[in-house]
Amino acid sequence: MKRAVCILSGGMDSAVASYIAQKDGYEIVALHFNYGQRTEAKELEAFGAIAKSLDAKTYEIDLPFFKQIGASALVDKSIAVPVDGIKPGIPVTYVPFRNGIFLSIAAAIAEKEGAEAIYIGVVEEDSSGYPDCREEFIQKMQEAINAGTKPQTKIEIKTPLIHLKKEDIVRVGAQLGVPLELTWSCYQNSDEACGVCDSCRLRLKGFEKAGLKDKIPYRS
Amino acid sequence: MKRAVCILSGGMDSAVASYIAQKDGYEIVALHFNYGQRTEAKELEAFGAIAKSLDAKTYEIDLPFFKQIGASALVDKSIAVPVDGIKPGIPVTYVPFRNGIFLSIAAAIAEKEGAEAIYIGVVEEDSSGYPDCREEFIQKMQEAINAGTKPQTKIEIKTPLIHLKKEDIVRVGAQLGVPLELTWSCYQNSDEACGVCDSCRLRLKGFEKAGLKDKIPYRS
Repeated sequence: MKRAVCILSGGMDSAVASYIAQKDGYEIVALHFNYGQRTEAKELEAFGAIAKSLDAKTYEIDLPFFKQIGASALVDKSIAVPVDGIKPGIPVTYVPFRNGIFLSIAAAIAEKEGAEAIYIGVVEEDSSGYPDCREEFIQKMQEAINAGTKPQTKIEIKTPLIHLKKEDIVRVGAQLGVPLELTWSCYQNSDEACGVCDSCRLRLKGFEKAGLKDKIPYRS
Repeated sequence: MKRAVCILSGGMDSAVASYIAQKDGYEIVALHFNYGQRTEAKELEAFGAIAKSLDAKTYEIDLPFFKQIGASALVDKSIAVPVDGIKPGIPVTYVPFRNGIFLSIAAAIAEKEGAEAIYIGVVEEDSSGYPDCREEFIQKMQEAINAGTKPQTKIEIKTPLIHLKKEDIVRVGAQLGVPLELTWSCYQNSDEACGVCDSCRLRLKGFEKAGLKDKIPYRS
């Protein structure tokens, strides 16, 4: 059976992307990164539940160095997470070259596991504006991965959500039976999602436009 | 003063590349990876000495996950390091996409530090045959890095050794006053270099052809 490494944060997008990989006929190798993000524990819990629901082999990879680099509100608690709405430009939640690092490690695991695809739930238009979520970057990264691995290693990076709107992601997730109530998108570390960070705003807008109810708890 | 992130393992090649960066007029940010390699302690000691001689700001980055991935004699002690001479093809010391991972992390640090170059001491022809040491890979990785970072971030990957023979690297190192006696190239973890692994063979051949004496201790 063909295999895919799925980068699975525990958020809605990566969960839907991983379910699409399964529907595409891949055996799933679920890959999670603990990188000192504010929501490390919440994400890991969500990852475990979704990986289990996919019957996936799992890799939990610790990347303690992101805190040494800092430069992002997601890993440096002295930088506040913006809660006043999505602004143009690259927000302070941007983590330098995070998806480059994640895809590089995914490539190493894919080469070891004999996987022929990497799934990543990046979204270009309806997103937070991170440069490492754009299709141009993904294409160049795929070329770099194939140039830098063994000749017999052929890895395709699959981005099934890249041109979807958030409401389409919610709809596809609901159709595929993704347990969206187990996913965690909020940038804050709390038992209830804040509802006002960029990630919560995008998620809530998606559910609203899809005409569906988000069952995770929100701070009222 | 313009800055460069120099990936510095503590080996001869990366030390020479870092000295070339300094000669090129860059302030050095020296970056070392502890990735569970057999020679982690020896390399870290060499890194510290060379970084000090360069008066560099340093980053020591722990990557414990390489042991989880394994698939290489350098991080999995159950796979023997070959000692019977360099063979065609990719050897078992190849670590899946190691330079892709190293360059991605270097890019994140370069973006944070405002560095405009990354120096890496890869050698293409006179090398161990790793796919992630080839110029084609480096060029594609540079494109990926510039596509996946902020628009104002412009990073050039510099590979001053890529087309050099080992004897040229020894000669350039000697001319620049690189303390080659402080570098460590052997794949084995020992007080004396083994002299028979691929890395020792390449190094010894380089000194011999350059007509210079390698002052590190070798097992006789």
